[in-house]
Amino acid sequence: MLNFINSYENIEESFQNEVFNKLKNEKESARVGYYSLVENDKLLEDIKNYANNNILIKENKLSDVVVIGIGGSSLGGKAIERAILKKDGAKLHFLENSDPINLEQTLSKIDSNKTIFVLISKSGGTIETTSIFKYICNKYKFEFDSKILKDRLIIITDDNSPLSKFAKKYSFSEFNIPLNVGGRFSVLSAVGLVPLYLSGVDIKELLNGAKKFSDSFFNNNENHLLNKANFFAKNFQEYRMNVIFAYSSLLEYFVGWYVQIWGESLGKIDSKKDRVGLTPIGLIGSIDQHSFLQLIMEGLKDKSITFLKVKDFQSDIKIPDVNMDFIEKTDYINNQSFQTLINAQCDSTMEAISEQNIPVDLIEIDRLDEENIGALILYYELLTSAVGVILNIKTYEQDGVELGKIKLEKKFRK
Amino acid sequence: MLNFINSYENIEESFQNEVFNKLKNEKESARVGYYSLVENDKLLEDIKNYANNNILIKENKLSDVVVIGIGGSSLGGKAIERAILKKDGAKLHFLENSDPINLEQTLSKIDSNKTIFVLISKSGGTIETTSIFKYICNKYKFEFDSKILKDRLIIITDDNSPLSKFAKKYSFSEFNIPLNVGGRFSVLSAVGLVPLYLSGVDIKELLNGAKKFSDSFFNNNENHLLNKANFFAKNFQEYRMNVIFAYSSLLEYFVGWYVQIWGESLGKIDSKKDRVGLTPIGLIGSIDQHSFLQLIMEGLKDKSITFLKVKDFQSDIKIPDVNMDFIEKTDYINNQSFQTLINAQCDSTMEAISEQNIPVDLIEIDRLDEENIGALILYYELLTSAVGVILNIKTYEQDGVELGKIKLEKKFRK
Repeated sequence: MLNFINSYENIEESFQNEVFNKLKNEKESARVGYYSLVENDKLLEDIKNYANNNILIKENKLSDVVVIGIGGSSLGGKAIERAILKKDGAKLHFLENSDPINLEQTLSKIDSNKTIFVLISKSGGTIETTSIFKYICNKYKFEFDSKILKDRLIIITDDNSPLSKFAKKYSFSEFNIPLNVGGRFSVLSAVGLVPLYLSGVDIKELLNGAKKFSDSFFNNNENHLLNKANFFAKNFQEYRMNVIFAYSSLLEYFVGWYVQIWGESLGKIDSKKDRVGLTPIGLIGSIDQHSFLQLIMEGLKDKSITFLKVKDFQSDIKIPDVNMDFIEKTDYINNQSFQTLINAQCDSTMEAISEQNIPVDLIEIDRLDEENIGALILYYELLTSAVGVILNIKTYEQDGVELGKIKLEKKFRK
Repeated sequence: MLNFINSYENIEESFQNEVFNKLKNEKESARVGYYSLVENDKLLEDIKNYANNNILIKENKLSDVVVIGIGGSSLGGKAIERAILKKDGAKLHFLENSDPINLEQTLSKIDSNKTIFVLISKSGGTIETTSIFKYICNKYKFEFDSKILKDRLIIITDDNSPLSKFAKKYSFSEFNIPLNVGGRFSVLSAVGLVPLYLSGVDIKELLNGAKKFSDSFFNNNENHLLNKANFFAKNFQEYRMNVIFAYSSLLEYFVGWYVQIWGESLGKIDSKKDRVGLTPIGLIGSIDQHSFLQLIMEGLKDKSITFLKVKDFQSDIKIPDVNMDFIEKTDYINNQSFQTLINAQCDSTMEAISEQNIPVDLIEIDRLDEENIGALILYYELLTSAVGVILNIKTYEQDGVELGKIKLEKKFRK
């Protein structure tokens, strides 16, 4: 369960209805597909079938899963896998960057004979992804038409994309991303679900949590979300940064996923040709109390802060009742659990910031499991969409990144 | 070697002299100690002597080094160790957070019989650090007065601090941080150098690079730094975020170190009681072209961007000459090295952003080695100090973080 505590002013009722109906229209139209990902028994079935027929899995030999993908093709899976305490399952790696050292370092950690590679790109035209895939084929002597690659490669791409045609030509296992689901909203499609399943995450519960939150929102039970969206959108010039302060190291990549969905969706030139945008910043508590908190407390008041707090870490390790000579002043925490400490740090920091009249809100997560993370994903997707509706921008596009790609290609094409 | 390319307007000469002299005064005064860290043969000698007498090292058994420290006690060491390609040396781990899961996960990776623990805190009063230390002593049955802990524990703290008294009482190995060196400026003191040496980093070269840059600056050969500092300080209301876009995954923690030194030093209430501040953001290329670039390109023009580019990755791995059916459009990069690709991505992105009239500058790093990273550290320390001088703030203090600590303690003390 998630518990939302915010005191943002109630959005005016007729405007609330307008925003709500626009989101409902997006959901019911064919234009924005992510809303429909939360219920997909067919995909769950297809993934299970794939696994039941994969030779490495049948022989219980799968040790590593390597995702070759970047941005929306990697951030969501990484966020979820890192957030959830899995008992077992293959190790999940991500090859994202065109950095040669990083590529070699990651590959040195895997046993290529026991690895499934998952190549993810909506079109296939992502230069990092195809380049890394070519390197891997060359390094491990995988010919496209050899039998071995059939058991080791999964391709996830848009239906009928160039990459899909490539997959079909060589009969590689293939999963599709619905055409109306953008990369940064695709974590609950095959993009996230296939690698997560192979690495031992309960993807059914993940979707279940997402669906429950979506249903609750569309049944008008989560209006706090619209109040918050309204505050962010209306005050984007004043509070131009939105900080997530997540009190668990396990949420390190979740805040990375948030940075993408928020930044790329909301940094736009609007219908009046004005630039709008809200800059996302991801922090981890208590670590960043020792790096970024000073700036929040005394710097410009240009940030709103959302605290994420995990109520139950499923760990009872304690600070032992040891007294350190001369440092008795820290002994007050002896006999408390680390969970009590980190959550008290979250509360104290939130109170201190709040006393500066800096806008704060709190999301309490019962525990880091599939159902709750699924709900949290949907919450942030809906919040992003709602802010986009109020700002009246093209939330689901990203025209701003094309120029750099064109320039890159020009450098090499004669 | 570092190469700095920026076109920030020349700072007016008399003002340049004023800022330069204030920095020189800081350097020569006893008030700000970090400037003097770049030359410290005595410390290098002491660290070597420690290593020569440590039983694990003498018997060639050291496998892991665990730093127990947070904020300024961990970020710098992490940044440097990750940035440099070491051939061998012990694995370096950091226990920072009060997150119980993270604590248990990190400790599960070490062999406690072959580990040196390095406890770092300026005063000893850091609640995460003492709590984790107590937990470790309890878990591994280390009694303070047992022989075994003498070989396994190093304490790094201020001279005469409560923690220093604790170290002396039990005869633990101890290194000191000069009293006039603040946590976030302490990476070139024992705080960074001890764990880095134990994990195989050439700390002499690190200091050497730092000293060379410092000498060059104080010989008036790096005035580009003052031009940039002047631009940032004078325009902090307009360009309130400074983004480092570092094109190598190895610089992931370097940008984390930058976030602390920049945010915590420059987010301040100034002498006129006004809030000032520049928000630091760390990005990694090419990855964040797929997450944050859209916001830079089309969102509010409230950011300046510094590109970090590594000229020589010391890797010649290439994109093989493989053609992918239907995706021929990415074949233009075949036969190029990954290094060429990532650096061309850096150039293309910088050009695209620059065309939007968003302020950009470039730092080229010959290669990621100790000397260059030392220089880069000094560059950012001096830049931070220079901006602080121009903003007329207390760069080296951090009063804003105290309130949360007081609130925390109150929750537990009856």
